[in-house]
Amino acid sequence: MRIVSLAGGIGGARFLRGLLTAAPSSEITVIGNTGDDISLYGLRVCPDLDTVMYTLGGGINEEQGWGRQKESHVVKEELAAYGVEPQWFGLGDRDFATHIVRTQMLDAGYPLSAVTEALCARWEPGVRLIPMSDDRTETHVVISDEQGRRAVHFQEWWVRLRASVPAEQIILVGADEAKPAPGVLQAIADADLVILPPSNPVVSIGTILQIKGIREALDAKTVVGVSPIIGGAPVRGMADACLTAIGVETTAQAVLDLYGSPLIDGWLVAEEDAGVGLDGVSVEARPLIMHDVESAAAIARAALDLATRIAARRGAATQDGDAR
Amino acid sequence: MRIVSLAGGIGGARFLRGLLTAAPSSEITVIGNTGDDISLYGLRVCPDLDTVMYTLGGGINEEQGWGRQKESHVVKEELAAYGVEPQWFGLGDRDFATHIVRTQMLDAGYPLSAVTEALCARWEPGVRLIPMSDDRTETHVVISDEQGRRAVHFQEWWVRLRASVPAEQIILVGADEAKPAPGVLQAIADADLVILPPSNPVVSIGTILQIKGIREALDAKTVVGVSPIIGGAPVRGMADACLTAIGVETTAQAVLDLYGSPLIDGWLVAEEDAGVGLDGVSVEARPLIMHDVESAAAIARAALDLATRIAARRGAATQDGDAR
Repeated sequence: MRIVSLAGGIGGARFLRGLLTAAPSSEITVIGNTGDDISLYGLRVCPDLDTVMYTLGGGINEEQGWGRQKESHVVKEELAAYGVEPQWFGLGDRDFATHIVRTQMLDAGYPLSAVTEALCARWEPGVRLIPMSDDRTETHVVISDEQGRRAVHFQEWWVRLRASVPAEQIILVGADEAKPAPGVLQAIADADLVILPPSNPVVSIGTILQIKGIREALDAKTVVGVSPIIGGAPVRGMADACLTAIGVETTAQAVLDLYGSPLIDGWLVAEEDAGVGLDGVSVEARPLIMHDVESAAAIARAALDLATRIAARRGAATQDGDAR
Repeated sequence: MRIVSLAGGIGGARFLRGLLTAAPSSEITVIGNTGDDISLYGLRVCPDLDTVMYTLGGGINEEQGWGRQKESHVVKEELAAYGVEPQWFGLGDRDFATHIVRTQMLDAGYPLSAVTEALCARWEPGVRLIPMSDDRTETHVVISDEQGRRAVHFQEWWVRLRASVPAEQIILVGADEAKPAPGVLQAIADADLVILPPSNPVVSIGTILQIKGIREALDAKTVVGVSPIIGGAPVRGMADACLTAIGVETTAQAVLDLYGSPLIDGWLVAEEDAGVGLDGVSVEARPLIMHDVESAAAIARAALDLATRIAARRGAATQDGDAR
């Protein structure tokens, strides 16, 4: 079975680990969000791609959900001793090596997709990880603070400000020009099923959907999403701050409406959100908390099961149509 | 008193620490060798400048003579895990931060001299450290091995091969186009005395002397050199391998002849090399082993004392000439 999944950072990566457990013999392609990417100290940092790569490759710091396990912070301390800014982004020494390799390859002219493939040759994540685009895009957030109304890089809002200042607008700079990375549209076209993990619907999945051609390609496929909102609150992270910025309520219903039909064909919600619905969408209620790999795998199994049933129904309908 | 010194790596840096102790109220400008510089993993590494900066700034690894004290090697291990080459150059984590800052500033358009000044703002080495040139030059070494006759970067010959393969030729690539960095010629012109530490006469001092205008500027000054060769062997390092490559014997006499007059006005040799001499050069024999800062300071004092006497003699001769 060929599965495509879209993914942001921690939530997406943990869900994917469950998906790999649930469907070990499937061919899984992950389209990763690069809107969070940032250049720091002359190095190109791709937080979401790395979180997926480290999580699936066994190198993630489990407690914090991002960065490397057994990490040290000598380089960061030294940069601070030189007075280099910013000092609010916590890169560890092991992580620095990844960014050094990536930057060297990018500077040598390799596209991000080739660089990501090269990095994954070490990590063997068990999926094919492709950045949404080789073109540089960056999510910026418009805020108003003592410095006035201004746009800051998503990471500055998310990491430095902990999303404490309301986002007035969230803009993917470069979205108009960005093309899907090589392999993205083909992987979607070839997919039997598409699964949207409980990643941030605005700055992760929403960002990927802004790359031209991706949403249209997905509209033609059987897509099942896992709600990132349970009982009116994000499972983790600060998705509520992002949803508010784009005028969407923090509910499983509102996120389903945001994605909409024909994109979504099946929607998994938590049991307390039973009752959510949308025309043309099969909604099912399941426990959605990912405590560990096994609970993530159970959610993935439910998503795959729902998607398989929807696809079979569609296949039957198509055959009926053909027979007519 | 205004003193100019030329310096390579370990030997030069240790001598300079002695010079600072010997002449604490002097204004010392150090012209640093950049022929050893190398780009590794997309980062610009300046081994000699850093050795001077760390040694005088109190950050050096005393045992090995280069690199930072309390150093770790996590980044290097991770780069190796990615299969990145070369793996024979031992950059530590603290050291990496220096190269990251340097590379970011160079990429932003700052010349190496400005970058070095910025790095020194942290280290406060007590001297003004200027690279010999802002233009990129690199020492390459012609060798013959199983891969045939070929030129390798100096660092590959020095660090990877430990100078075990004979150097057939040593070439400073870029020497013809390189101009002295801003401040170099002015510092020499303004200097009361110039001291050449016991740095490598071929790939350290010899390299600096190849930058156009520097040798000519030094010819006009009172220059005292400290022999890097004691009793037919280098005090440290592999200067003999470099001297052989350019057809010069490993003796205090041969190095004096190599520098020659009018460049050199005074030459300090070890007691076992008493008898060395050259027309127009005042030679004195002294203990030249640098065990510690105090013995380095004693050598520096002897060099300053000799230089001061030569300069006074010249001043008197000039006054006599004026009076005639």
